[in-house]
Amino acid sequence: MTSPIDMTRKIPVAVLGATGAVGQTFIRLLENHPWFTVAEVAASERSAGKSYAEATRWLEGELPANVAKLTVTPITQDAVRSPIVFSALDSSVAGDAEVAFARDGRMVFSNAKNHRMLPHVPLLIPELNADHVRVLDAQRKHHGWSGAILTNANCAATVAALGIAPLHERYTVTRLFMATMQAVSGAGYPGVPSLDILGNVIPYIADEEPKLEAEMGKLLGTVQDDVIVHAPIRATSHTNRVPVEHGHTVCMSIELEKKCTPEEAMRTIDEWQGAADALNLPSRPLRPVVLSYRPDRPQPRRDVNAGGGMTVTVGRVRADNIFDLRLVAMGSNTIRGAAGGSILNAELLVARGVIPRA
Amino acid sequence: MTSPIDMTRKIPVAVLGATGAVGQTFIRLLENHPWFTVAEVAASERSAGKSYAEATRWLEGELPANVAKLTVTPITQDAVRSPIVFSALDSSVAGDAEVAFARDGRMVFSNAKNHRMLPHVPLLIPELNADHVRVLDAQRKHHGWSGAILTNANCAATVAALGIAPLHERYTVTRLFMATMQAVSGAGYPGVPSLDILGNVIPYIADEEPKLEAEMGKLLGTVQDDVIVHAPIRATSHTNRVPVEHGHTVCMSIELEKKCTPEEAMRTIDEWQGAADALNLPSRPLRPVVLSYRPDRPQPRRDVNAGGGMTVTVGRVRADNIFDLRLVAMGSNTIRGAAGGSILNAELLVARGVIPRA
Amino acid sequence: MTSPIDMTRKIPVAVLGATGAVGQTFIRLLENHPWFTVAEVAASERSAGKSYAEATRWLEGELPANVAKLTVTPITQDAVRSPIVFSALDSSVAGDAEVAFARDGRMVFSNAKNHRMLPHVPLLIPELNADHVRVLDAQRKHHGWSGAILTNANCAATVAALGIAPLHERYTVTRLFMATMQAVSGAGYPGVPSLDILGNVIPYIADEEPKLEAEMGKLLGTVQDDVIVHAPIRATSHTNRVPVEHGHTVCMSIELEKKCTPEEAMRTIDEWQGAADALNLPSRPLRPVVLSYRPDRPQPRRDVNAGGGMTVTVGRVRADNIFDLRLVAMGSNTIRGAAGGSILNAELLVARGVIPRA
Amino acid sequence: MTSPIDMTRKIPVAVLGATGAVGQTFIRLLENHPWFTVAEVAASERSAGKSYAEATRWLEGELPANVAKLTVTPITQDAVRSPIVFSALDSSVAGDAEVAFARDGRMVFSNAKNHRMLPHVPLLIPELNADHVRVLDAQRKHHGWSGAILTNANCAATVAALGIAPLHERYTVTRLFMATMQAVSGAGYPGVPSLDILGNVIPYIADEEPKLEAEMGKLLGTVQDDVIVHAPIRATSHTNRVPVEHGHTVCMSIELEKKCTPEEAMRTIDEWQGAADALNLPSRPLRPVVLSYRPDRPQPRRDVNAGGGMTVTVGRVRADNIFDLRLVAMGSNTIRGAAGGSILNAELLVARGVIPRA
Repeated sequence: MTSPIDMTRKIPVAVLGATGAVGQTFIRLLENHPWFTVAEVAASERSAGKSYAEATRWLEGELPANVAKLTVTPITQDAVRSPIVFSALDSSVAGDAEVAFARDGRMVFSNAKNHRMLPHVPLLIPELNADHVRVLDAQRKHHGWSGAILTNANCAATVAALGIAPLHERYTVTRLFMATMQAVSGAGYPGVPSLDILGNVIPYIADEEPKLEAEMGKLLGTVQDDVIVHAPIRATSHTNRVPVEHGHTVCMSIELEKKCTPEEAMRTIDEWQGAADALNLPSRPLRPVVLSYRPDRPQPRRDVNAGGGMTVTVGRVRADNIFDLRLVAMGSNTIRGAAGGSILNAELLVARGVIPRA
Repeated sequence: MTSPIDMTRKIPVAVLGATGAVGQTFIRLLENHPWFTVAEVAASERSAGKSYAEATRWLEGELPANVAKLTVTPITQDAVRSPIVFSALDSSVAGDAEVAFARDGRMVFSNAKNHRMLPHVPLLIPELNADHVRVLDAQRKHHGWSGAILTNANCAATVAALGIAPLHERYTVTRLFMATMQAVSGAGYPGVPSLDILGNVIPYIADEEPKLEAEMGKLLGTVQDDVIVHAPIRATSHTNRVPVEHGHTVCMSIELEKKCTPEEAMRTIDEWQGAADALNLPSRPLRPVVLSYRPDRPQPRRDVNAGGGMTVTVGRVRADNIFDLRLVAMGSNTIRGAAGGSILNAELLVARGVIPRA
Repeated sequence: MTSPIDMTRKIPVAVLGATGAVGQTFIRLLENHPWFTVAEVAASERSAGKSYAEATRWLEGELPANVAKLTVTPITQDAVRSPIVFSALDSSVAGDAEVAFARDGRMVFSNAKNHRMLPHVPLLIPELNADHVRVLDAQRKHHGWSGAILTNANCAATVAALGIAPLHERYTVTRLFMATMQAVSGAGYPGVPSLDILGNVIPYIADEEPKLEAEMGKLLGTVQDDVIVHAPIRATSHTNRVPVEHGHTVCMSIELEKKCTPEEAMRTIDEWQGAADALNLPSRPLRPVVLSYRPDRPQPRRDVNAGGGMTVTVGRVRADNIFDLRLVAMGSNTIRGAAGGSILNAELLVARGVIPRA
Repeated sequence: MTSPIDMTRKIPVAVLGATGAVGQTFIRLLENHPWFTVAEVAASERSAGKSYAEATRWLEGELPANVAKLTVTPITQDAVRSPIVFSALDSSVAGDAEVAFARDGRMVFSNAKNHRMLPHVPLLIPELNADHVRVLDAQRKHHGWSGAILTNANCAATVAALGIAPLHERYTVTRLFMATMQAVSGAGYPGVPSLDILGNVIPYIADEEPKLEAEMGKLLGTVQDDVIVHAPIRATSHTNRVPVEHGHTVCMSIELEKKCTPEEAMRTIDEWQGAADALNLPSRPLRPVVLSYRPDRPQPRRDVNAGGGMTVTVGRVRADNIFDLRLVAMGSNTIRGAAGGSILNAELLVARGVIPRA
């Protein structure tokens, strides 16, 4: 992870929804970031005016000292002045707030679902669809914004899309069956009550299946005439909550347009590097997708931190009895599938010069 | 659960592999059984000659007093004299041992995989395929046995087959995608090390997928010319181990020959009673399959004991994006999926008069 | 569990705080109760006016049909008319509400901490201190109530007190060291977030240690001059939350006034029956305290349902290096330690004739 | 963690019992060690002759490439030639094997219990009792060894001793009550079956309590006349297994000879640095003991990796009702309490010049 940028002049960034679980992960990942520095933290009225340390029930590791003492601001474009805005807002407020920032000229990198499916809003994974950034001019023109909104996908969709990306690029995925086993951290904090999940499986996550199915097509889509056209993938899914802390596991059966053997598939996954654009971004892992040859991997507790939480591990590549291939993909829902994904997206925009270096 | 039989003259039964986890479940379920009484317990050389209490690390609840004092015998047809033999043997020894008992005139009800796929051996679930018993004469003739072997299916296959049985009977399942989340008790004792499964998912269970896929066709098959002909179902599966004590959950996408709406499917499941033959068997639950209308059910910890562990709970019946329907089935792997299933099978044979009442 | 009362004329009871976790346990345990029938369910303004089924997210098993259709009433003595009132109210509202009912002539059996330590309010465990009921006249006189308030102890205190009661009666406990490992259900629903407790221990439960320590003395105290005088036990405690669904485990080191060997202690525990008054109460288990001789018991998952959740299991009785004895006690926090304990208390009052049979 | 030693000439070390869980942790921690390099791996006959990769079911992270290809040797002083020997042997074989190596001139750093309590064998924690190394000459003379055996303590004893060390040094601990909640990794692999511990507590660990109690006195003892004299601490304990992956938690009530307030105790813990000898050792964490001021800490899942697993976190310092103080200590059983502790011990011997630099 190289950082060719002048480290003495980092770009100030703001985190919206900074006190929640995703907001905290942003702050944790941005500590010591080579290009960005957390200059502002914004949260709901209840927290505004307090110091961040005071306003927050910090969940994991140590709260970075420089952020601890920041004063929490309201979530308005007047109170928050940073040119880059990471949004960890709840979808109940993200819609209007993010638009207000985009209209005001900011680059908004959002985890919320609100704008994900708009045709001019990239659902961005740099290794996979960096060129979706090309729709930004149309976005600005269409909406009349001087800034822009870029989104990252649902956490399970991110893992699934990266898991099949190498195969899709070469063989074209046409139909896709998915069954997920998702970690409790995907539900935020306090999230899932322990009485519901200890020693149990909940075969349902509200609104998750439609999101997962719809986002796969957009993530693997292409840019045509300034809009993102979905890949013609038919996807169906079963989403489940399991008593795992971090790491979403996705079992997939895949139909391919061009046929390949499991061995060819494994070689393809093993060789895949992803889009060249992403290669030198600071948060980009050595390998965005790693193939495990052990028969019983990937496993969330053992593989979730691969590549600092930015690598998706794929395993059990084998023939399917109905479609062509079966495999399992697993990745971090909190890092790659949320805050880490957003940060990587922002890095791509800086590297491409869309966002000026400080 | 009625018991029209004379309780003063119960049929003596033997449990082979009595000290293991499945063997213990047999003994627990047979305590106070209206028709059967555990007269003999057989286990490996290491245990033979000891009292059952001494030879066994009893896992759940209280060891029934009358069994505690039985002397463990070797697993031979000379040492074990009961007419009904429940086999909880490991597949490494079940093959020869079960044949020896069948040849010697005993009715062997087996949990082992060894003889499951033989064309004259029923893979029996009374509510589902009671008429498969019709192949027994051919079995005896073909193998030259005076007794017989009847098997119950793999625990996940049992849950899946009961879950789709109501739909298959009316609409005919043609293709089937399954993803399982299986409890640790399915691996026996000591089974899965806690270091492997605490807060984790293992996306692999050795040899499970081929068994699950193959057994579905046989379970839902028909008898033609004295052999069981598999239903032409194409099945594919992903089997996973999860940190759940008891209860296997199976997510399924189902293609049907005759189309139906989710509402029709729900009505069909709700009305299903299973084969009339099974109705008055002592271990038969009030309902072999129960439909839950709650959006987040079935759940293993909350539903595994439905019908005393003999009922499979089905939920989340909805349309599929690729096939026709999606649903989730969950049932007890240790009761319905193992010892309880075998006992129900033996009850069917007694009720049909194949096994004479004492 | 005998029920000599005329079952055709059950006593109507009300459950206050009926929609919460403890309220639900009351309703579950009172289904088919031989003496009581749930006639009224009361809850906060938000729920009042709805049917109970509509107002409640039912957590365990099936909601009893007769209660499902009851209309939830407000928590006022005008709206609720039953002579017996079980209070599962949160301590933030229990104080005033329970007094209002007692003043109005009702017998209030409370799980809340608010009135537990008042000198005229019994902290009742029938097998242990049934004669504490003698202070009720003084309570009425002192407070000017025509009804009364009877409380049951903190769930951990209940388990600990029953665990040492046999020894205290014969040898007198003088000093007591306790370390608890408490189930998540002790915190109610939604209670402990799964992100806090999966694969973790939280060595702190807010306000638990002072309650546990103070209540031990009162539970084991005696009635003198119409007030309950605490036993002079010096108690110290460490309370911990562990990833267990139900069942609080308490490790104890005990100093005794009269010395005894571990063997004598075990015999004493084994023989203990508790107060004769309690013997024929419907919810009284066969044995209030059971001694396990297995080296690694009691265990919450395996022993929590002993005696229908009303039996405390004691094990590992051995010499202590500082005090006299060490042992482990484990019992159900939701049954014996909460709703079941309250119901048993009400049964005692009926059996003693303090509450008239219907 | 400074490393003033010439890194081009590392000291070759051997790991005995290299394929087990503790052996693997040694290999993981020694990867990139500035002073030591794993030159030899020894294990039982069954593994000898195979490559380490072949002989081992590697549990955590990636197997270091240079060790993967080493050939496993038998556990004999002829086959193993390294001057430093880390013993992760099971106690059933450690006794004789370690003596054989010590007699042959090797410095043996052992995790096994066999020699821990011998009066001339240090039970070493460098920050706590570095001067116990002074008995080594007497050890050699007494046993006629040209090498030596140094042991590290039981994992729970290590956490408890470091937790109270700051207070003991200043105020002298005289009596000590301990209740532990120990992680499953303390039982090795496969260790605790998941069916025993999922959602459960086991209030018993075989042989653990006597070890824990006895070792506390030796760890905190002093050297007099060439033997280690135990500190006159009376200790009693309750040891429990809980469903936690890594990290032992110990609740303690402490009696002190010189009284102090909780505030003074906290200050004392906060200021403690441990023996100066340990300060520059490579594996020594910045702080061997860290005081947490949060009310609900330490917690194993959140604090076990403090100081790379070498720091013990102490919290909840408060007054005790019977003794003087209560507190909770938590630390890594696999790092500080096992392999990491041994490595630190070896570093101390190198830094003191007892072991010559390569």
